This record gives sequence, structure tokens and C-alpha cells, in this order.
Amino acid sequence: MTLQIRKLDSSAAGFKQTLDALLAFEESTDDAIEGAVAKILADVKKRGNAAVLEYTNRFDRLPNGGAASVDVLDLPVAELRAALDALPQAQRAALEVAAERIRVFHERQKRELQGFSYTEADGTVLGQRITPLDRVGIYVPGGKAAYPSSVLMNAIPAQVAGVGEIVMVVPTPDGVKNQMVLAAAALAGVTRVITIGGAQAVGALAYGTETIAAVDKIVGPGNAYVASAKRRVFGTVGIDMIAGPSEILIVCDGTTDPDWVAMDLFSQAEHDELAQAIMLCPDADYIARVEESINRLLPTMPRQDVIRTSLTDRGALVKVRDMAEACAIANSIAAEHLEISAAEPQQWADQIRHAGAMFLGRFSSESLGDYCCGPNHVLPTSRTARFSSPLGVYDFQKRSSILFVSEAGAQTLGKVAAELAYGEGLQAHARSAELRIKAK
Amino acid sequence: MTLQIRKLDSSAAGFKQTLDALLAFEESTDDAIEGAVAKILADVKKRGNAAVLEYTNRFDRLPNGGAASVDVLDLPVAELRAALDALPQAQRAALEVAAERIRVFHERQKRELQGFSYTEADGTVLGQRITPLDRVGIYVPGGKAAYPSSVLMNAIPAQVAGVGEIVMVVPTPDGVKNQMVLAAAALAGVTRVITIGGAQAVGALAYGTETIAAVDKIVGPGNAYVASAKRRVFGTVGIDMIAGPSEILIVCDGTTDPDWVAMDLFSQAEHDELAQAIMLCPDADYIARVEESINRLLPTMPRQDVIRTSLTDRGALVKVRDMAEACAIANSIAAEHLEISAAEPQQWADQIRHAGAMFLGRFSSESLGDYCCGPNHVLPTSRTARFSSPLGVYDFQKRSSILFVSEAGAQTLGKVAAELAYGEGLQAHARSAELRIKAK
Repeated sequence: MTLQIRKLDSSAAGFKQTLDALLAFEESTDDAIEGAVAKILADVKKRGNAAVLEYTNRFDRLPNGGAASVDVLDLPVAELRAALDALPQAQRAALEVAAERIRVFHERQKRELQGFSYTEADGTVLGQRITPLDRVGIYVPGGKAAYPSSVLMNAIPAQVAGVGEIVMVVPTPDGVKNQMVLAAAALAGVTRVITIGGAQAVGALAYGTETIAAVDKIVGPGNAYVASAKRRVFGTVGIDMIAGPSEILIVCDGTTDPDWVAMDLFSQAEHDELAQAIMLCPDADYIARVEESINRLLPTMPRQDVIRTSLTDRGALVKVRDMAEACAIANSIAAEHLEISAAEPQQWADQIRHAGAMFLGRFSSESLGDYCCGPNHVLPTSRTARFSSPLGVYDFQKRSSILFVSEAGAQTLGKVAAELAYGEGLQAHARSAELRIKAK
Repeated sequence: MTLQIRKLDSSAAGFKQTLDALLAFEESTDDAIEGAVAKILADVKKRGNAAVLEYTNRFDRLPNGGAASVDVLDLPVAELRAALDALPQAQRAALEVAAERIRVFHERQKRELQGFSYTEADGTVLGQRITPLDRVGIYVPGGKAAYPSSVLMNAIPAQVAGVGEIVMVVPTPDGVKNQMVLAAAALAGVTRVITIGGAQAVGALAYGTETIAAVDKIVGPGNAYVASAKRRVFGTVGIDMIAGPSEILIVCDGTTDPDWVAMDLFSQAEHDELAQAIMLCPDADYIARVEESINRLLPTMPRQDVIRTSLTDRGALVKVRDMAEACAIANSIAAEHLEISAAEPQQWADQIRHAGAMFLGRFSSESLGDYCCGPNHVLPTSRTARFSSPLGVYDFQKRSSILFVSEAGAQTLGKVAAELAYGEGLQAHARSAELRIKAK
């Protein structure tokens, strides 16, 4: 069965409306999920471990009648190391290369943010101090969607930032542990692993229990319950962005092997039916060749059903006037992943203002970045690259302003502050500044 | 009437529970407000300017039967400049000094974040690019709580970041414009001012209308309707933190004039009844002197009713064992404003991990920082300094990862990525990496 992927032309009437409709993704909120999550969180906040244990035994169907206490749900750190040691050699080596490259990139990120201070002529010192968070929680999904690469991408930036405690929660449905996930935790510097999941794990991390200290921030992907719980605890703790469906946008000049581009579209589409894969290209003949590649390669893919649905429902091959127009459209899409698959990619990259990550040149497939180039694979989705950034070391640090006003500084600044404070009707502010001014 | 401010002792039984209870602040959500805001936002999204006009005429009680169209609610930029020119000279000079100092500090912030890239031995280039947001909205409250300093603090970082369009919305209840706010907008590089407010203004900025282009991020303080609207549009646009009540924590070694400390506590307490002002000090005699100052100075304050309620309900003077314990407690409080009012402040500052802004030494009153030192006065409240930062240039910039994989790089990275992708069951990812590997 030939796949009917949408073909659009930027010169056609109504193109902008068609594209907007294709990009539109309204996250539905499910009242049943919202209600269940609110109840679980309130229960965990009130009853602590007793609630966590009940929900875990029930939802994760733990064997042998369930766990007897939350304490036994802690995995000894030795078990993480054992999981790493037990991996097939090739897998272990790949995981180690990935972890090391991710660490190198994020250490470079850390070096950029060192804080600063400067001293003014009158001795007043102003500055900004950077400090790591004390304790963070990393949520890792259990079951089939358990991704060791995600453990590396979430935990290593925290470790590089200098976070003291990195607490990973991962449910073990039916008691099954994913050994590659545990091995990744060993490599990524996770300091504690608790085999709990769902809204109850988010609640335990946010509020703390008798045996689980409350964290300062929770990151990592999860299902609709986890996403809802993270939204609800935001403010009590920090959270990362709630991710929408994953997206790839390929801007192609028509010089890349069309099989490569087709497979890159598949690699996004295979994530799930809602994933979005779009190509922009000025060459109509090339677009036809990519379509031919898609239809020839699709039957060879184990996840072809997911790919077919994703590409049919949300994919598109778009004929554009030229590469400059492709870049303008790419800016309006602000894609999570942007491949510029072109012979001379830099000239087009210079025209891009909004993208989570840019993959430049035909050898830079998104899949390389997903696993092991070094930059983070947690990226802003759903056009949020207009205003937000990849997950990074900076997400595990915060800034404090430093103000040391000298006696001389207080004389001049005090008059300015008092003038403005009186103007705003805040007399105690004004008096507080004036008290520091010496009578002449 | 003597003010009964709470006096606590860190050595007393149950101190931690008492302090936790004092710090606790549960933001109530009002179902009536939530419902009204949801309706207004949906209406603005659907009907655009027509809805914005109706709500503005109704809620802001505009004179002469209200505005005839949204277009007339735009303030000409010349009017901002005229407001600046018409200010009393002392006020204008103070505003200019403040704007200039805020700009200098934030330019230093911008210099810290330059992005980076590095080239590996095989020619692979990895990096991070920093770009400003295209368009931001600054919400400025109207009426009595209209603060020109807030215009400077929100707009100047955006301007320094290089944001192209800075759109300020400010309601004009009963048609009254605050001239000092307009003057501040002129100084802060605001590119457009629209005299609308409330949830309808947030909706117009987030979704755009026929004549108002949608922005990428909305910052600035507002009432409960505005806060609710910002929360609801988050995701469509970025937002800053939703601020809780303002807080000051003063760690004092007992060597500062007690009148100064009392006035610093007032300067926080005068903001509103929910503001929180706490002092930690190891010297019981000094605490008594501060209390005496409070009671002597309070009757002289125009906003004494607000101060009295705030200090009675949420304030405290806490006797601690020593300054080291004061620092430990300060870390657990993670205050928005932390004054270290001491003869040798640096040694104590070195022990602080969590604070929005630190004011070091007895001349560094919070009020100086609120107006004109240079660092931002928009700071994390309600213990969120554990994981978040002052408003800054970085809030108007975002990062994009850059990945340029060389042909040689694709050979080695491709094998690593494929190994891990197969391990995660994502075969298209693996194939996409393998296609770039040359057959030997």
C-alpha cells in the first residue's frame, strides 16, 4: 500500500493556512487524568510513603503481592554498576562513548557561565553568582519507552552543574527492570534510584516523604499522568518543559541521497503517531525521488505502522521557491530538530533564528545527535524554540545577584532611590535609602 | 498601639515547625477568576480586536463612552518622549540614572553568554548559538500599583538582549495615564505601547489580533486575572515566573543601626499585607532595640496600616545561636531579598547557596537595589530561589545547538548511534545513522 504523504507548494493559494493547520497541535487535557493526578498528589503530600507504596503496588502490579515498604524500592547503587558490567561489550562501549561525549559538550556549557562581579569607582561591588541546585529528580519512564539515552541526557547536565544529589525514579511495571537504563544511570552519576513512577513518584520528589527528601527540580519525560503531575507541582519545585510530540524539519537543497532524507523522516516518524516530519525543498524532481524512497524503504521498517500513520497524518513534502524561502518558513516553524541537508549548509544556517537544534550538512543525521554527538536531545517542541532552549547545565544552576553598596555609593544611590520611591508612593523605601545618607 | 511582632528563638522546641508554618504560603486559586479568564482568553482568540475592545471599554471604564477601536488605544511613541520631557527635573534625572545603571549591569550579563563552538579532530563541529527573541510583551499594571521602576526592570533586559519589538501593555482605568510609567517606557526602549490590560491584553499578546502581532514571551507583574491568564497561555508563549508576595530576610550581626534595620523591614512590609519581613540575629539585646525602633518609627509611616498587618501576620524577629546558624536558616528560606547587615558580610555571603539577591553590608539596603543599583528587582519568591534566577537578559535569549558532523565523524558516531538505537528498538534511527557509513 503506497503511503499518501501530503505534498504542498509554497506558491499555492492558502499555503500558509494549510501549513498552520498541519503544525497546529492542541494538547488535550483529559479531565479524568487531571482528577486522578490531583488526588494522588494530595494523598502523597498527606500520607507520604504509605500513599506512595499503595499506588506503586497497584499501578505497577509488583510481583509477590507487591513491595512491603518504600524502602525496598530503593535500588542499591551496586546494582547499577552490576548492570553496566553485565551489558554486551558493544553496547557498553557505545553507552560509554555517548556518556563521555555528552559530558564534554556540557562541560563546555558550564565554562560559559561563571558569574561575574565589578567594582565601581566608589567601591560599590555588583555581580552575579552561579550556584548549582542542591537536589534534583530525574523521571525515567518504565516499560517499553525506557530509553537509556534519555537517562544520560537528563542526568549528565545535572552532574556537570555540580548538583549534589541526583535522584532517579523509574517504575518497574510487573517488576521488570531495564538493565540498559540502570547501566546508563551508573555512567551518568545518578546518586539514588527509586523504582517508583507515575504521579506518585512526582509527588514524592516534590513534597518529600519520610524517607525521600524533597528535590528542587524534576526533569525527564513521562506519560500524561506524569506530565500533569509535573505541571501541578511547578512552583513548589522547578520543572523542565512539558514536551509535545517530537518534530523534524528537513531543509534540503536536493543534493543529498534521497534514501538518507527518507530515513531521517522515518526516524522522527517512528517515535509515535503524533510525531511530525516535514521536508522543504526547491526541487520538485528531488521531492519525487524522496517520495519514491519513502515508499520503497517503508516496508523494510519494523515500526512501519507507526511511521505510516505519522507521515500520513502530520508529515509533508513541501516544494518551496528557493532555499531562502525555506529558511524563512523554518523560522516560522521553529522546529525542535532542523536538518539543513545541503552542500553548503552554513549560508542557510546563518539565516535561521529559531530551532532547538540545527543539524548541518548531509552527514549530520538527527539520529547521531539523539544519541552521541554531545549536545542534548531534550529540545523545545511545538514552536517553543522561539523562546526556549535545549536542556542544559544552566537548567541545573541558578543565579543570585550580589549588591555590596559602599558608604560613598549609598550617598549618591540613596538620593536616586528616594526620589523614585517617593514617586511611587513607597515612603519606607525612600526612608530606608535616606537613613544611609549622612547629614552634611 | 504597640505592634506585636512575633519573636522566635531557634533553640526553642518546635522552632522548625513554627518557622515552616510562618513561611508557608498557599496560593489560592479562585474558581470565579479562573472561569472568567478562560472565557476572556477564548473570546480574544476567536474574535480578536472586537473582543479586546469590548473588555477594555467595560473593565477600564474608558471615558466618553469608551474607545471606538483598538487602533486608538495605541499610544504614539512621541507621547512617551513628551511624558519624559514633562517630568520634574529631579524625577527625570533619577529615572535616567536608574535606567543607565540597569543597562550597564545587564550588558555585563549579556557579555557572559556568547555561545561557543568547537571542532573535533575529524572535522565535526559542535556548538551553541545564542539568539534574542523576536518580539516580547511587557505587562504593566495600571492605577495605583503602576511602578515606573518595574518598566525599566522588565524592558531594559529585553532591549539589551536585542529583542526587535518590545510591546508594552498598560491599562488606563478611567482613562488615566501614569506619566512616569510612560517616561520610563521611553527610556527603556519600548517600541509600542497599547493601553489595554487584564486577561484581554494577555490574550491579545499571546494569540495576536488583526492589528497586534503575537509575541514570543510575556513578562511583568499583574493582578490575579493577569497571573491566571499568563499561566494559561504558557506554552503558546513563554512567561516569566508568577511572583508570590515579596519577602526580605535580614541576617544581622547586631552592629547595624537598629533604625536602619527596622526601616528595611518596613520597606518590604509596606508593599502589601502578605509581604514577609524576617530578621535573624544572634544578639537578644539588639533584637529588643530593633523592636523598639519598629514601634517608635511605625507611627511616622504613611503606609503604617499595611506595615502593621504584614509584620504582625507574617513578620518575625528570630534569635539564632550564631551567624553560621543564621546562614543555614537563610539557605532553607531561600529568600527573594537577603540582606547580610554585618560588619564583615563576605564571610557570611560565602555560606549562602540560595537567595534571589544578596545585599551585603549595612549600606546595602534593599531599596537601593529595588530602584537603581543595576541588578534586576524581579526576583524569585516563595523559596523558588532554590531553582530559579532573577529576571535577566538570558530570559530574552534562547540557545540553539549546532551539530555539523563531518563525513569521517559520521563513520565513528554512526556505529555508536546505531548500537544504542537498536538497543532502544528504534530501527529507523539506527538505519539513518548506518546509511551514512561507507561500505568498506
